Amino acid sequence: MGTKILTFGEVLMRLSPSNYKTLQQSNEVEFYFGGTELNVATSLSTLGCEVKHVSNISDDFIGDAALSFIKSHGIDSSYINRTEHPLGLYFLEVGSAVRPSRISYNRLNGSFANINPTDINWEKALEDCSYFHWTGITPGISENAYLALKQGLKLAKEKEINIITDPAYRSNLWKYGKKGQEILKELIGYSNLFIGGVNEINEILETNFNSDDDSFIEASKTLISTIPSIKKVFDKVRIGKNASNQITKGRAWVNDTYFETSEIEISQVVDRIGTGDAFAAGLIYGLIHLKNEEEALNFANAACALKHTILGDVNLVSKEDILEVVNGNLGGRIKR
Amino acid sequence: MGTKILTFGEVLMRLSPSNYKTLQQSNEVEFYFGGTELNVATSLSTLGCEVKHVSNISDDFIGDAALSFIKSHGIDSSYINRTEHPLGLYFLEVGSAVRPSRISYNRLNGSFANINPTDINWEKALEDCSYFHWTGITPGISENAYLALKQGLKLAKEKEINIITDPAYRSNLWKYGKKGQEILKELIGYSNLFIGGVNEINEILETNFNSDDDSFIEASKTLISTIPSIKKVFDKVRIGKNASNQITKGRAWVNDTYFETSEIEISQVVDRIGTGDAFAAGLIYGLIHLKNEEEALNFANAACALKHTILGDVNLVSKEDILEVVNGNLGGRIKR
Amino acid sequence: MGTKILTFGEVLMRLSPSNYKTLQQSNEVEFYFGGTELNVATSLSTLGCEVKHVSNISDDFIGDAALSFIKSHGIDSSYINRTEHPLGLYFLEVGSAVRPSRISYNRLNGSFANINPTDINWEKALEDCSYFHWTGITPGISENAYLALKQGLKLAKEKEINIITDPAYRSNLWKYGKKGQEILKELIGYSNLFIGGVNEINEILETNFNSDDDSFIEASKTLISTIPSIKKVFDKVRIGKNASNQITKGRAWVNDTYFETSEIEISQVVDRIGTGDAFAAGLIYGLIHLKNEEEALNFANAACALKHTILGDVNLVSKEDILEVVNGNLGGRIKR
Amino acid sequence: MGTKILTFGEVLMRLSPSNYKTLQQSNEVEFYFGGTELNVATSLSTLGCEVKHVSNISDDFIGDAALSFIKSHGIDSSYINRTEHPLGLYFLEVGSAVRPSRISYNRLNGSFANINPTDINWEKALEDCSYFHWTGITPGISENAYLALKQGLKLAKEKEINIITDPAYRSNLWKYGKKGQEILKELIGYSNLFIGGVNEINEILETNFNSDDDSFIEASKTLISTIPSIKKVFDKVRIGKNASNQITKGRAWVNDTYFETSEIEISQVVDRIGTGDAFAAGLIYGLIHLKNEEEALNFANAACALKHTILGDVNLVSKEDILEVVNGNLGGRIKR
Amino acid sequence: MGTKILTFGEVLMRLSPSNYKTLQQSNEVEFYFGGTELNVATSLSTLGCEVKHVSNISDDFIGDAALSFIKSHGIDSSYINRTEHPLGLYFLEVGSAVRPSRISYNRLNGSFANINPTDINWEKALEDCSYFHWTGITPGISENAYLALKQGLKLAKEKEINIITDPAYRSNLWKYGKKGQEILKELIGYSNLFIGGVNEINEILETNFNSDDDSFIEASKTLISTIPSIKKVFDKVRIGKNASNQITKGRAWVNDTYFETSEIEISQVVDRIGTGDAFAAGLIYGLIHLKNEEEALNFANAACALKHTILGDVNLVSKEDILEVVNGNLGGRIKR
Amino acid sequence: MGTKILTFGEVLMRLSPSNYKTLQQSNEVEFYFGGTELNVATSLSTLGCEVKHVSNISDDFIGDAALSFIKSHGIDSSYINRTEHPLGLYFLEVGSAVRPSRISYNRLNGSFANINPTDINWEKALEDCSYFHWTGITPGISENAYLALKQGLKLAKEKEINIITDPAYRSNLWKYGKKGQEILKELIGYSNLFIGGVNEINEILETNFNSDDDSFIEASKTLISTIPSIKKVFDKVRIGKNASNQITKGRAWVNDTYFETSEIEISQVVDRIGTGDAFAAGLIYGLIHLKNEEEALNFANAACALKHTILGDVNLVSKEDILEVVNGNLGGRIKR
Repeated sequence: MGTKILTFGEVLMRLSPSNYKTLQQSNEVEFYFGGTELNVATSLSTLGCEVKHVSNISDDFIGDAALSFIKSHGIDSSYINRTEHPLGLYFLEVGSAVRPSRISYNRLNGSFANINPTDINWEKALEDCSYFHWTGITPGISENAYLALKQGLKLAKEKEINIITDPAYRSNLWKYGKKGQEILKELIGYSNLFIGGVNEINEILETNFNSDDDSFIEASKTLISTIPSIKKVFDKVRIGKNASNQITKGRAWVNDTYFETSEIEISQVVDRIGTGDAFAAGLIYGLIHLKNEEEALNFANAACALKHTILGDVNLVSKEDILEVVNGNLGGRIKR
Repeated sequence: MGTKILTFGEVLMRLSPSNYKTLQQSNEVEFYFGGTELNVATSLSTLGCEVKHVSNISDDFIGDAALSFIKSHGIDSSYINRTEHPLGLYFLEVGSAVRPSRISYNRLNGSFANINPTDINWEKALEDCSYFHWTGITPGISENAYLALKQGLKLAKEKEINIITDPAYRSNLWKYGKKGQEILKELIGYSNLFIGGVNEINEILETNFNSDDDSFIEASKTLISTIPSIKKVFDKVRIGKNASNQITKGRAWVNDTYFETSEIEISQVVDRIGTGDAFAAGLIYGLIHLKNEEEALNFANAACALKHTILGDVNLVSKEDILEVVNGNLGGRIKR
Repeated sequence: MGTKILTFGEVLMRLSPSNYKTLQQSNEVEFYFGGTELNVATSLSTLGCEVKHVSNISDDFIGDAALSFIKSHGIDSSYINRTEHPLGLYFLEVGSAVRPSRISYNRLNGSFANINPTDINWEKALEDCSYFHWTGITPGISENAYLALKQGLKLAKEKEINIITDPAYRSNLWKYGKKGQEILKELIGYSNLFIGGVNEINEILETNFNSDDDSFIEASKTLISTIPSIKKVFDKVRIGKNASNQITKGRAWVNDTYFETSEIEISQVVDRIGTGDAFAAGLIYGLIHLKNEEEALNFANAACALKHTILGDVNLVSKEDILEVVNGNLGGRIKR
Repeated sequence: MGTKILTFGEVLMRLSPSNYKTLQQSNEVEFYFGGTELNVATSLSTLGCEVKHVSNISDDFIGDAALSFIKSHGIDSSYINRTEHPLGLYFLEVGSAVRPSRISYNRLNGSFANINPTDINWEKALEDCSYFHWTGITPGISENAYLALKQGLKLAKEKEINIITDPAYRSNLWKYGKKGQEILKELIGYSNLFIGGVNEINEILETNFNSDDDSFIEASKTLISTIPSIKKVFDKVRIGKNASNQITKGRAWVNDTYFETSEIEISQVVDRIGTGDAFAAGLIYGLIHLKNEEEALNFANAACALKHTILGDVNLVSKEDILEVVNGNLGGRIKR
Repeated sequence: MGTKILTFGEVLMRLSPSNYKTLQQSNEVEFYFGGTELNVATSLSTLGCEVKHVSNISDDFIGDAALSFIKSHGIDSSYINRTEHPLGLYFLEVGSAVRPSRISYNRLNGSFANINPTDINWEKALEDCSYFHWTGITPGISENAYLALKQGLKLAKEKEINIITDPAYRSNLWKYGKKGQEILKELIGYSNLFIGGVNEINEILETNFNSDDDSFIEASKTLISTIPSIKKVFDKVRIGKNASNQITKGRAWVNDTYFETSEIEISQVVDRIGTGDAFAAGLIYGLIHLKNEEEALNFANAACALKHTILGDVNLVSKEDILEVVNGNLGGRIKR
Repeated sequence: MGTKILTFGEVLMRLSPSNYKTLQQSNEVEFYFGGTELNVATSLSTLGCEVKHVSNISDDFIGDAALSFIKSHGIDSSYINRTEHPLGLYFLEVGSAVRPSRISYNRLNGSFANINPTDINWEKALEDCSYFHWTGITPGISENAYLALKQGLKLAKEKEINIITDPAYRSNLWKYGKKGQEILKELIGYSNLFIGGVNEINEILETNFNSDDDSFIEASKTLISTIPSIKKVFDKVRIGKNASNQITKGRAWVNDTYFETSEIEISQVVDRIGTGDAFAAGLIYGLIHLKNEEEALNFANAACALKHTILGDVNLVSKEDILEVVNGNLGGRIKR
């Protein structure tokens, strides 16, 4: 088993007016590339890991720009195919204080939704990989995406690659006729690490746990007993005072033990998008490179907190930045 | 009596450097259209009301752009005349934390100040209207503006249209030789609803009430006994910790009863301008569409709070946005 | 028969890096709303005509912004429905000199492609209309769009409304299984005015005429004899020295007579998109308001030339601007 | 007599959408400071001359920014007073190719229009000055501006300072009840150098000369015989192919001799505003520092040509830049 | 002794992506001019003092822009020489909340580092001066800068000019072979006022005082006994909750007396850079114009707090702005 | 011998105000990465070649951004070292029409100038390479750069790799004590292909050939007889009407035969920088992939022409774009 990490998922273009403007009062939008699994890939690559991202992008100048972005982060893009369908995209209006942010997607007929499962050489893509990261967004996009993912997961399980899932259930996906809960349960059955908390477990298992720490433990136990491939549960807790002020905390249920991180307050949020992906990337990095799951969780939580200060979907912070936050240096001294 | 709302007032262009820059360190300014009564009109139209705005704008490409803005919000602009004088405008330097914002006006010889009272067909403009909203800024601009307003108010009163006033006394207006207090008292005499608090009452009646809730009740009683046309007093209270952090609250004296809303904190203010106008629009909407004055006040206060998160003079939030804040959903979850 | 003009077609959002940048080297794009038939509508409204635009747009904040744009130009938007599919859009990289511009569309599964023909109240929409403008892009988008258009054309023909078509054949449309030539021939059969030249006629009739003036006459005759509902043929000729330097000319075959305009050179092109639509709008305006077809053609050609100097899809020039160009005032004196 | 140059006139703020946009399709404007006489002052200061600019500006943060601009160019601003009236300003829509630029002013009630003639200490301001430059715009703004100018001219004439006038007759000024022709004739009577051609002479003397070179000579003779204080006439000829392509030429009638410069073509105009002021500044510089009037005229024409390549009202080119154009180096080699 | 203030130090260009972006995700940077001593000069000039700034800048268009900036603030730039070396500059990535800001310098071979000590006419520069402000950054840049500074200080001391130092020890300077501590001790020996606290004293004297108020007093006593020219110690204390939330306080040890200001919280920091320089300028202003050192310290602390709300290196606030903060008006009312 | 291409040279950051502004009138600059040899590398990579770029960049966030740019273009960056010196950079003011562009460098003490020759593993870097491209700028920067280059050239010659040189003599380099002519002659002695014309030959050989085609042949013969390693001479001829209008032509002397391309006019230049590098890249591509030197020269000339339409240093056009220009399709039709 190798040292590389494979991520699989849609590459999305994000288009957003700057400075809290609504689209109606703008005439330009900033754009970024992202997508939940690519966000994880980029963050891991920034932290120094070798990452392969498998996807389908459009064969036009928008796809060229996306590919250029992926390469710029040193990610292996050899397994990204080009197709004639347009790149998926979304518009974002950024909220502030009591106004929530707003997202509108244009992805259900895009290049990734139209991925051809037989086009992916999973055998070669999984070579030298020790981790496979996927989220519940992918099988919710289209049946093709679901089938492509399942092929990859099957092979990865055979190869005993660690499979980490962020179920990320979204009710505005799953429009192609399959029931999200069933498919997610099936696919989580290939995975051994679970990033998610009470909400995600409730959605998948259709249970009714509360969000307190004890309930989290009960929910984790129920998840593990229902889907026994899962061995470890990691949860990112976010307490939103408002759109501009957020508190992050990590908690975990690992080997029948509960542990949690301290809380980190982000008093002036720059960007909410991708903070969960930053957590996932921090966690994977930590599981590979740090002493134990507890250190990994602290690293993940600090990475997640820092992402709130970075524009765009992707966490562009270094290992050193994260370790400073882990060590409690939050005072904002200028680095010269 | 109809269902439409009439607003009458100056259309102003606002020019402002972005990102807290001073004008001296900028070489471009963002611009917005607004003006206190147009702000109310736009917000009401966004909430789904039918609104007519009566005004005078310049007959050049600046006026064209203003008209285009007004139309874009679905406001009836049939009663807006075009004249050769330039459109009124103001420059704004946006403050932050301990630095206050700064405004400089260029309006006293503009197209609205030069409005010809006989050019307005008030009879036709007031057709189908149930509300007429005016503010104390209009009669402060010029004698012509005062006379035009008085004609409209007279006719509206005859037609038993609800007249709602925000006296908005500003000492840097009233340069044409009339005493603000006297004229405001005269014009408020046509109105039955009053948006204003202790400060406004003190300025108009030259009294000395404090700002606490009991004094507000006393001031309201004094106002009603002095100007008996006024039946209801609605007050927006703003507690500014600093330019970036504001708390809003509404209170009212209606039918010998006092009631108030809870406080809403806006911890990262995007734009202070037009928050009072957002309150007025929310109130009018509520008086027409909600169960009672108390619900209307809650709606007004939430609308006012949300305006602090929107750039420009105008509140671009929907009824649904406001109701969420009324219902206490302030956590800033992303809407997908 | 009324005086209003009806246009029917997709509302598109255009996204484009500024200053000749490629998308790859940008991180923001300017956006504009347009779409070939809406461009005609907007230009006609700017020229003072009453216009209704019939379409389908998305029911999200992108659709809100589009609607706000349409209203801002004073176009009647009562016949625009909202649906859950995303608004169609396209990306544009603007070329210069020897580098061509490049467009990539994302429209084939958008809100217009998914228009439901039975949702349009054509009877009411066509009330008071004397002109119906459509282009060959609409039936190329989807079968639904084709069927919706055909219903409108049928009824318009019954009502003896003038139907003007710009066939605008595009080979990268027509992906839903119908042959473009056949459907266009069918739909042109409802029309009495044709905007197009040798290329369009060759594409529709699968003929092989050259582009010189004599061939244009022959092609027009063939068109009229093949599709006898067509009475008049108007052609916009563009001679591109390069992406930055274009020459426009109009020619026509009307009542067995050929006439043409003088050539206008645009030595520094600001925007190529929508110049044909500017021609169409100028022509319709001229046919309604000017003395004869020859004057209309001159007006159309000047409008087309001026559009090359306006950013975005839409021609924002006034009648006075166009008449100056018609009168040969090309020297660029500043208007104060 | 000293070596300094005095200019007197309004400081204007210019506000303009970038990239050929119309105001209607923009939400920001770039701004510049200028004003025809200040443009001359700034250009002269950039060329190394000592310049005093006498004016009245607003006492607010807009005036602060204007003053900061004036100081940044090393101009002596000691004779600029601050008043409560707003700074004059204008909006500009920049044309291209066949579309002319468009200007709309807001100046007739600004700080300069309200200048108090007795506030200017002309005695002190004219100390050490050898040139006084004024234009016909100033007396057209307001009676106060006219009176203030006349006082200055009178004293300058007594002190035998060279007085150079650019009559710049504009019909959209002169709204305060005086006839432009009469006042200009009076004030030109204090001047000994005249920058203007057939148009200006026709407007002032109400003659009808053509624009060819022979007519220019006749017009000049007529001017000199009518207003005998004038000794020298310098004319900037501009031949506009269109808004993007201009040709400049200088010609003069000096001491009964005619001479002219070669033509310079500017094939991609960046900014038309202030090109005449660049000519005036180049001429004054040349009259002081170069060998004779012919060299001065060549320098003026090259300065004027170069201004077409500079954004804003003000010519920011160096003496070296101008001399290269005088010497025919137009090939655009990069200077490293 | 005169009333002017002399500052001596590097003019730096600062280049920074806007809106918290990293450089990697930007394609443009905003730029500002500054440099710690020039920041003090500019702030003093804004407050109404006469200031001379002595420096060396590049003889290219970057230097031209820097000079234009300096002149725009009314600073006497007669003692600024131009050299062929490039202007020093630095890049800044602005942090937020838990992410610190990051600076990277390019200054060690720039125009100031290459200053020729014999090129400065200190005799003339110090004429009419009552204050000389320098910081420990200057002697850390290069030996030439150190020697140039020492010459100035020597002469200033002879002339009994007040010399105020902000030692600003930075370990990433001092690369030319001298030990920072020794040289700073030598140069502070010429000074009578010291701006700095426990950290600075510890760094220079290699002591180990804590940061509490008692230790500050002890440290100050030690400093004064070690370097007896120093008579007064002023300290700016900053308590950073995070990069977006800072608290400022001033404290002083003057004439064997300790005093301090109240704390001011800045809850939404716009720009951290130059806040210490704002303090220094406020202090110098206060020492000259206010009643006593305590008032000067309050003024300095309020100036420092306000600088956190201004973009760029330079504090652009007026005396009136500062006095309002001194008087506790922090509520952010809009100034009209 | 492999198929890869090696380029060696400085990575430069370019900073430039947009829209023809001068730096003095700007407060932001766009930035791009480039450098003459990196420009060649990027263009070759865009054309589909495998390229290694060898260089030294700064170990800070500016270097990170540069590296990200290089990776985004798919260039092998394994041989780029990081050092503590700042990245070289230059400022550019873009000219227009009669105003030339202006460049100011800050590179002589940057990370590349301080390259350590022994840090480069030339043996490994040259593996699999068939072409080595260098320019005369590199040895002009510093002695270290010269020595590093010479080591690479020596080894490349031993390995019989094609060495192509663009001598690019610049008099404002060569400040470290060596004579440019001598060193260039030495280094060209390792090369077999020469890109340069009469100017370059005159500068290196200190001859005096004219620029006409016959003289070019004579100069080429002289070059080949003086430096017999050179076998082929390729010249890019640029005829600048002005900064906005350029004509390009290629000519060559290969195997005792002269041939040339047709001229291509670029009537609206977007960016002059890097056009020579685009020629070099086009030529190398052509020499490897096209039929003969004549086709390669046509390809190179078209690539060079297209670069005039692309912002930044780097030619971002595809092979298809170039072949269209080779085939004479210059009309600027929009590609959909």
